[in-house]
Amino acid sequence: LDYQHVQVPFEITLWIMLASLAKIGFHLYNKLPSVVPESCLLIFVGLIMGGIIYGLNDRSPPVMDTDIFFLYLLPPIVLDAGYFMPSRPFFENIGTILLYAVVGTIWNVFGIGFSLYGICQVKAFRLQDVSLLHNLLFGSLIAAVDPVAVLAVFEEIHVNEKLHILVFGESLLNDAVTVVLYKLFRSFCEMPTIKSVDVFAGVGKFFVVGLGGVLVGLSFGFTAAFTTRFTKDIRVIEPLFVFLYSYLSYLTAEMFHLSGIVAIIACAMGMKRYVEANISLKSHTTVKYFMKMWSSVSDTLIFIFLGVSTIGENHEWNWPYICFTVIFCLVWRALGVLVLTFFVNRFHVNTITGKDQFIIAYGGLRGAICFSLVFLLPDFHRKKLFIAATTVVILFTVFIQGMTIRPLVDLLAVKRKRESAPTVGEQIHIRFLDHLLAGIEDISGHWGQYYWKDKLEYFNSKYLQKILLREYDQPKSSIVLLYEKLERKHAIELAETGQLGRAPSHPSLLNDRAVIMDKKLEDDALNPHVLDNMQEILARNLYRTRRTGPAYSRHTLPGETEHVEHAKGILILRHKSL
Amino acid sequence: LDYQHVQVPFEITLWIMLASLAKIGFHLYNKLPSVVPESCLLIFVGLIMGGIIYGLNDRSPPVMDTDIFFLYLLPPIVLDAGYFMPSRPFFENIGTILLYAVVGTIWNVFGIGFSLYGICQVKAFRLQDVSLLHNLLFGSLIAAVDPVAVLAVFEEIHVNEKLHILVFGESLLNDAVTVVLYKLFRSFCEMPTIKSVDVFAGVGKFFVVGLGGVLVGLSFGFTAAFTTRFTKDIRVIEPLFVFLYSYLSYLTAEMFHLSGIVAIIACAMGMKRYVEANISLKSHTTVKYFMKMWSSVSDTLIFIFLGVSTIGENHEWNWPYICFTVIFCLVWRALGVLVLTFFVNRFHVNTITGKDQFIIAYGGLRGAICFSLVFLLPDFHRKKLFIAATTVVILFTVFIQGMTIRPLVDLLAVKRKRESAPTVGEQIHIRFLDHLLAGIEDISGHWGQYYWKDKLEYFNSKYLQKILLREYDQPKSSIVLLYEKLERKHAIELAETGQLGRAPSHPSLLNDRAVIMDKKLEDDALNPHVLDNMQEILARNLYRTRRTGPAYSRHTLPGETEHVEHAKGILILRHKSL
Repeated sequence: LDYQHVQVPFEITLWIMLASLAKIGFHLYNKLPSVVPESCLLIFVGLIMGGIIYGLNDRSPPVMDTDIFFLYLLPPIVLDAGYFMPSRPFFENIGTILLYAVVGTIWNVFGIGFSLYGICQVKAFRLQDVSLLHNLLFGSLIAAVDPVAVLAVFEEIHVNEKLHILVFGESLLNDAVTVVLYKLFRSFCEMPTIKSVDVFAGVGKFFVVGLGGVLVGLSFGFTAAFTTRFTKDIRVIEPLFVFLYSYLSYLTAEMFHLSGIVAIIACAMGMKRYVEANISLKSHTTVKYFMKMWSSVSDTLIFIFLGVSTIGENHEWNWPYICFTVIFCLVWRALGVLVLTFFVNRFHVNTITGKDQFIIAYGGLRGAICFSLVFLLPDFHRKKLFIAATTVVILFTVFIQGMTIRPLVDLLAVKRKRESAPTVGEQIHIRFLDHLLAGIEDISGHWGQYYWKDKLEYFNSKYLQKILLREYDQPKSSIVLLYEKLERKHAIELAETGQLGRAPSHPSLLNDRAVIMDKKLEDDALNPHVLDNMQEILARNLYRTRRTGPAYSRHTLPGETEHVEHAKGILILRHKSL
Repeated sequence: LDYQHVQVPFEITLWIMLASLAKIGFHLYNKLPSVVPESCLLIFVGLIMGGIIYGLNDRSPPVMDTDIFFLYLLPPIVLDAGYFMPSRPFFENIGTILLYAVVGTIWNVFGIGFSLYGICQVKAFRLQDVSLLHNLLFGSLIAAVDPVAVLAVFEEIHVNEKLHILVFGESLLNDAVTVVLYKLFRSFCEMPTIKSVDVFAGVGKFFVVGLGGVLVGLSFGFTAAFTTRFTKDIRVIEPLFVFLYSYLSYLTAEMFHLSGIVAIIACAMGMKRYVEANISLKSHTTVKYFMKMWSSVSDTLIFIFLGVSTIGENHEWNWPYICFTVIFCLVWRALGVLVLTFFVNRFHVNTITGKDQFIIAYGGLRGAICFSLVFLLPDFHRKKLFIAATTVVILFTVFIQGMTIRPLVDLLAVKRKRESAPTVGEQIHIRFLDHLLAGIEDISGHWGQYYWKDKLEYFNSKYLQKILLREYDQPKSSIVLLYEKLERKHAIELAETGQLGRAPSHPSLLNDRAVIMDKKLEDDALNPHVLDNMQEILARNLYRTRRTGPAYSRHTLPGETEHVEHAKGILILRHKSL
């Protein structure tokens, strides 16, 4: 037995396997996931696992390493989030989202930091040794809403699109703020004196970190799109570029201390449109599926590891500090949402209702990012207290808030997500209004979102598409594209339900009576009854036919090559001849 | 700048990116890959890269680490090979393949080992310090044909299926022999004396290593198939299980010193059939694409790393030893193939022609496995000579043989791969003959391959399918299945070429004249000319419609959920009503 040799990949594979099997397990009992969010169940599994490991080894396994989390587990989730981000609601609400993400997070950091410092001044609590700067540092890591936790809960409760994008967008974009504030306070902690110039430098850093992330992301995204122009002859590695470039954008941003999350989102949103147009349909399916799969696994692992890492001797318990942390997190978030929404509502026609505000405030879940950041703290004597407080806040938000938010959404009758996709008529209407509003804004000299959208679209079709798309020609009419897409989907569905199998399609027969008669005769000759009989006889006496595939080849999939071309050719010919 | 932090994933990503871009680069110049095999080009890129790195750092980068190769780069290639292995030709020729893989490899090992030992006895060559055991050890690592190199070359020359599977199957299955002989000689090298019992134990190990690998692989394969029975509610992680279980089978086999390659092939071949039946069509596309992608990247990386690692100061040059190694490799392989084929041909009706024998002998390429094994050798004073000899043999076989094999195949007019897939008629015929032969074998009491195949098929449909398949019912007739598959493919192709978009299919209209007339009127009202006009007007005045997707969700892909169900429902209704 040579376990040492294979240990690393073996244990990684086993953890992933455990996570996947746990997921299957939950879904076998249908009732469980409808009451308790999956994230809670996974943390619970993690806690049990951690307990077992701790009982056997007397120490918690170092699975939730900060590097592992930030370098390997977080990027797939953010990539998935960015790639499938519904861009219209996101850009429509970008102002509100940024307000929540930037101002709201700063508000929370300082609110929580200062009020915890106030608590520390009460002598009875024995916390006088926790300085203001440490409290602010703690505030900076505990204030940020966690995208992983928010996603895990919000995707199950199906609130309306706007509410969803507000909470979700905030949780993604506050990363830039968190990174800056956390690093600022950490460096302040290590500085002997803090000059006012340092504070100003910190403020300037916001823009560098955020905009830098966007720039890095967009440049990688466009490079990715450009690269996929040339992959026509090697379809198999197309999906790879989507993953490679977005991961590189994340790593590059992290390397320059920019916001990796913002970078990967910008990269995914930037490349999506062009990559989709360049790569083949099957490659695209692979990209989509693999992204979902990967993020799903990452997310599962994060929650399990969160549970596992909770068990251990890292905690220092101090009732008042921990209780007040939870309370302040709730109170300051609620206040922040109220105040910010008040301003937002003054400038918008579509206001955010009171119910929505409540859900936004209540949906501010904390998760693995805080947990990783608290372990990254420089060693000082109260670090274990911070770890304990963070753990409690995370468990409180994920378990209590996560489990009660669905009943609350039901109780308050919060507007739900529209279940059906918009009809073609609605879409045309929306497009038309967009165009109209862009014109109005242009005439009135008000440079609003429609104006910019119009300009961007113009820039895109004039320059970007020519550079980034492989087959650039006059874009087809949107309706035709949509129709083609729908027809393709119908065809596949028809085939999957077996309808096509039983009644072969002869679309052009409509124009040719003679052919119809011929076909009818043929069909009669092979009527279903006769066919069934034949099948039965064959099924009894022959075993299942599998296609004897062509010889193995690394770069092509069976049935992808000549055969397909051949079949296509025949179909086109058949179609033309009729 | 914080490079340290992201170094590992960043460098891995960059290497993969370099490999992928190199691949794209070759394919931009269409003429290049048709003359020089890709593997040669990649090694060449690697040599240049290695030269640059060596020039800058004065030492070769440690990229081709043995662990990296065996644990991360090799498994995807073997998995891909096993999963897409054409099972019929493989099992039809399993006897011949095993003969080549086991007896042929042993023949080569001892042939090369002993004759090199003979060379070492020539005083003028100054090699007298290389013992017989060391020569045999060297023989055991240099004798084995490399699956990665064979695949890379043979997939480009399209020889007939039987020839392909003979070389390819041998290169895969000789792993068990190589593992045993290599480890045996290595442990003999470290033993003070060798008893005869050790030799017998070595012979016994063959069976343990080979059959153990098969057992491990099959058990993981069946577990994988069983697991996919329960993934109906979480389609996104279905593809994962295919990869996880096969990788686990490889690692487990390696852990117990069994043949990992044999295990992963058995796993892939065992699970393929059941997994394909259980998982969704899209998951299956993802599995296939990702496997191809992964193996393609691994393969590219291996050849680049091979080039990079060649540069360095690991080599001790000794002309006679190196030249004779190359010669003996060629001679002993040619002799082995001749002798073994002589016996094979005596017992078969379909003999292996002289041309085929030549290609089998000439196609015995060496590659990265030898290269990794030679670095794994225990340190002794002539290790650098072995490294140099191995490098030369690999470069010689990949460059000289790899580049000349295509012209030779053309020159000899070796029977090529049949380009078109067999017709349904041929397939039925083949099946029928199989069944007939199984019956004849049964009556005549000769337990040949048809008899066993029949028994296996019976066992499969009686027990295995019931346990491993989700929706087990009386298997549909093979012809119906094939027809459904073809129709599905046709439908997709039709939609992809846009035919369906222009002429929607109304399959059942054949039976209903009235509906035809109605439809005709409708079609006339929206005749192509009018439609085109509309499209143009819309295209000019509205910009491209993108579907405003539903809100983000982790576990579902847009358009996969209700909408699809809805569309399906409508289609089925429409179909029934007609």
